[in-house]
Amino acid sequence: IAKEVAKLLEMKAQLGGDEGKHKFVLKTPKGTRDYSPKQMAIRERVFNAIITCFKRHGAEVIDTPVFELKETLTGKYGEDSKLIYDLKDQGGELLSLRYDLTVPFARYLAMNKITNIKRYHIAKVYRRDNPAMTRGRYREFYQCDFDIAGQFDPMIPDAECLKIVHEILSDLQLGDFLIKVNDRRILDGMFAVCGVPDSKFRTICSSVDKLDKMPWEEVRSEMVGEKGLSPEAADRIGEYVQLHGGLDLIERLLQDPKLSQNKLAKEGLGDMKLLFEYLTLFGITGKISFDLSLARGLDYYTGVIFEAVLLQQENDHVEEAVSVGSVAGGGRYDGLVGMFDPKGRKVPCVGVSIGIERIFSILEQRVEASEEKIRTTETQVLVASAQKKLLEERLKLISELWDAGIKAEVLYKKNPKLLNQLQYCEDTGIPLVAIVGEQELKDGVVKLRVVATREEVNVRRESLVEEIRMRTSQ
Amino acid sequence: IAKEVAKLLEMKAQLGGDEGKHKFVLKTPKGTRDYSPKQMAIRERVFNAIITCFKRHGAEVIDTPVFELKETLTGKYGEDSKLIYDLKDQGGELLSLRYDLTVPFARYLAMNKITNIKRYHIAKVYRRDNPAMTRGRYREFYQCDFDIAGQFDPMIPDAECLKIVHEILSDLQLGDFLIKVNDRRILDGMFAVCGVPDSKFRTICSSVDKLDKMPWEEVRSEMVGEKGLSPEAADRIGEYVQLHGGLDLIERLLQDPKLSQNKLAKEGLGDMKLLFEYLTLFGITGKISFDLSLARGLDYYTGVIFEAVLLQQENDHVEEAVSVGSVAGGGRYDGLVGMFDPKGRKVPCVGVSIGIERIFSILEQRVEASEEKIRTTETQVLVASAQKKLLEERLKLISELWDAGIKAEVLYKKNPKLLNQLQYCEDTGIPLVAIVGEQELKDGVVKLRVVATREEVNVRRESLVEEIRMRTSQ
Repeated sequence: IAKEVAKLLEMKAQLGGDEGKHKFVLKTPKGTRDYSPKQMAIRERVFNAIITCFKRHGAEVIDTPVFELKETLTGKYGEDSKLIYDLKDQGGELLSLRYDLTVPFARYLAMNKITNIKRYHIAKVYRRDNPAMTRGRYREFYQCDFDIAGQFDPMIPDAECLKIVHEILSDLQLGDFLIKVNDRRILDGMFAVCGVPDSKFRTICSSVDKLDKMPWEEVRSEMVGEKGLSPEAADRIGEYVQLHGGLDLIERLLQDPKLSQNKLAKEGLGDMKLLFEYLTLFGITGKISFDLSLARGLDYYTGVIFEAVLLQQENDHVEEAVSVGSVAGGGRYDGLVGMFDPKGRKVPCVGVSIGIERIFSILEQRVEASEEKIRTTETQVLVASAQKKLLEERLKLISELWDAGIKAEVLYKKNPKLLNQLQYCEDTGIPLVAIVGEQELKDGVVKLRVVATREEVNVRRESLVEEIRMRTSQ
Repeated sequence: IAKEVAKLLEMKAQLGGDEGKHKFVLKTPKGTRDYSPKQMAIRERVFNAIITCFKRHGAEVIDTPVFELKETLTGKYGEDSKLIYDLKDQGGELLSLRYDLTVPFARYLAMNKITNIKRYHIAKVYRRDNPAMTRGRYREFYQCDFDIAGQFDPMIPDAECLKIVHEILSDLQLGDFLIKVNDRRILDGMFAVCGVPDSKFRTICSSVDKLDKMPWEEVRSEMVGEKGLSPEAADRIGEYVQLHGGLDLIERLLQDPKLSQNKLAKEGLGDMKLLFEYLTLFGITGKISFDLSLARGLDYYTGVIFEAVLLQQENDHVEEAVSVGSVAGGGRYDGLVGMFDPKGRKVPCVGVSIGIERIFSILEQRVEASEEKIRTTETQVLVASAQKKLLEERLKLISELWDAGIKAEVLYKKNPKLLNQLQYCEDTGIPLVAIVGEQELKDGVVKLRVVATREEVNVRRESLVEEIRMRTSQ
């Protein structure tokens, strides 16, 4: 009998399992999030600072679809291609979500035969990464891109991109930052003189790219162990990649007996020198570091590359400035547009991408800590009444205010209590209350109350709009 | 031999076919498009008008991810569910692109246990429809949504939504428009008294929804033929759905011997009457039509529904005003949030969605026709030089201007010709040129040239920023 009972219980459990109501998961997809009104207020501050800067530099703005033909993205991202989100094949074209804004930009230029443009583009991009959301890393995140396309004299647009990063990070007051700069030609020249075979340039470059997250010993063992580089070549690389500095280092490397013999490295170093001259004119070399360990993951860079890191978070009491991660990056990609042009015509490009999620995380923490009260609406006045049965009068008045361009709200109740109406203003930061009552209606006035001071004045109805404007202009 | 040759030729053709370079298609996905800088300038005008209106009504703003868990969207869109874009299963969660902003909003409310909010959300949504792009229909398109969630007295928030549509369409000066209004309860009551079985309410509602694109005869034959409705019931529906009017019609239907006996219809008509009273207070009934043929496709509506149509395009010389399609729609959906809440707790909601693509198409055509010159940048001044070898001086000056917040550009050439620099200003609408030359540098001045008048004045370098600000403030 016990056996039979156990058997029946097991069957019941199984049935229960199948019948059990499907537990509905109430969440956003992994690596994504909603933005609440308060978060949106902070986000819009950041966007404003960035857009203001982009416009200050004369950029136009474009937009592209969130997905591209799959083949548009193919072969552009090297090892990172596995992180691309594909759409399900539902008949028709094979599509993928954009991975960055740079490849769609290049596709846009080739498709429209544009050879000369300075544009910005702010939009979400998608990467099937393992997100560390607490540190501001997501699968869906905004990029704010500024790019200059066209055949120009060397390093002038490149210098402007760095100036822009400097302006934005200064503007946002995120604390100290450093912009690391390098050049793919210097890297490739360095790999060549260190004895890396041509075929291993890109993969060794990927290893170097990990130096901001791993110690040299681990990167070295990846090069030698996984990627089959000779230990001697790795050690030679190891000597170079610890170098960083300014014009002095560039001069020294221009004299380096090995590097100076390599055509690519020489070109790169010559341009780096020119870049630093322009950055000196811009007065920003203090925060720029020529850093031979900077590699950048993406395949499409051909010249200057750069990355901005914040050195230290606000409330950290650490002795030494430590990097809290990259907030901007970019570089020159002279070959990308040509990959899309049917005749392979190239359009040289250089650009920068600001990653706002990490910036946003920092500002959000700062707001939390400061207990600053952020308003999430701009309402100037609440239309209220002290007595019952005045809904119609409230609606008539608010309609007049809306039509005059005043930002106004009304409680959606037939007979709200005055106290509740005043409380609503306190809660949401509405500065004024326009109160209608029987007497005021007879007298042709509205009682205007200043929430902060509790001061009340009767204002003639025809002057109300002007009075509200005056009292709510800064 | 001939046989062998044919065989070889065939083999060659096959090889050629395989070897033949893959024809790379340079396009955006079907139903999508890029926005050029000029188009973006128009788009931002439209957004500004809409956002200004939403803020005037005290709305906060939120944002949600572009994709949701697939199950979040399941069972919300009725027959339209087949138009949802799914993401490929690459391991992990099953995801779909959002189909509208309403379902993500409801998910957001349930997830954060919000029972009271007035918010707007402007973002792209995705539908695998057959697009008619010339008429402003796309697979990727913007929706601008404003919704009021919360338990309030009847029809006050509903009336505000209609006021908002009225304000936006008036503001944008798109010509004459009409806002059709109906109520799902009136429709359901009508179906009941016409003899439609309960189980066929939704599918017959879908048929009625097609009345703006199809004549009644076709809709009738779909009801009777495809959907198995009795011809008598269809004919009774046919009589109702040709009715439209205002308060008078509502009063008449409240007296209708059949409808007035139906509880749902009576409720709906009572609220419709209240709605029209509020709309009268707002002074907008002139453009509102209570229309029994309005059904709206989506499953989730429970009360008032509405849709705004433009009646006639600018340059059309047609006698009668004809609808050129819907530009806004919305309604009440009191049950949707409850579908997400684990305990089924309901949050009543009403909202409106403005579809900007069609509006944008109209404005774009209008700009083309008017030959209005739209500036795509805001640059105030071009920093130029008349002589050679002054690149460094130009960069020094522009850096000063940028740091002072002046929107400035410089040509990325070492030695640009003055004529080319002036031409660039003409082309892009830059109003001022700041010219540095040997003599000016010695004298501590900059020559400021007004592009429109060719007037030139020497301005002391320390006063330049102020002078530019003054001359470029409206």
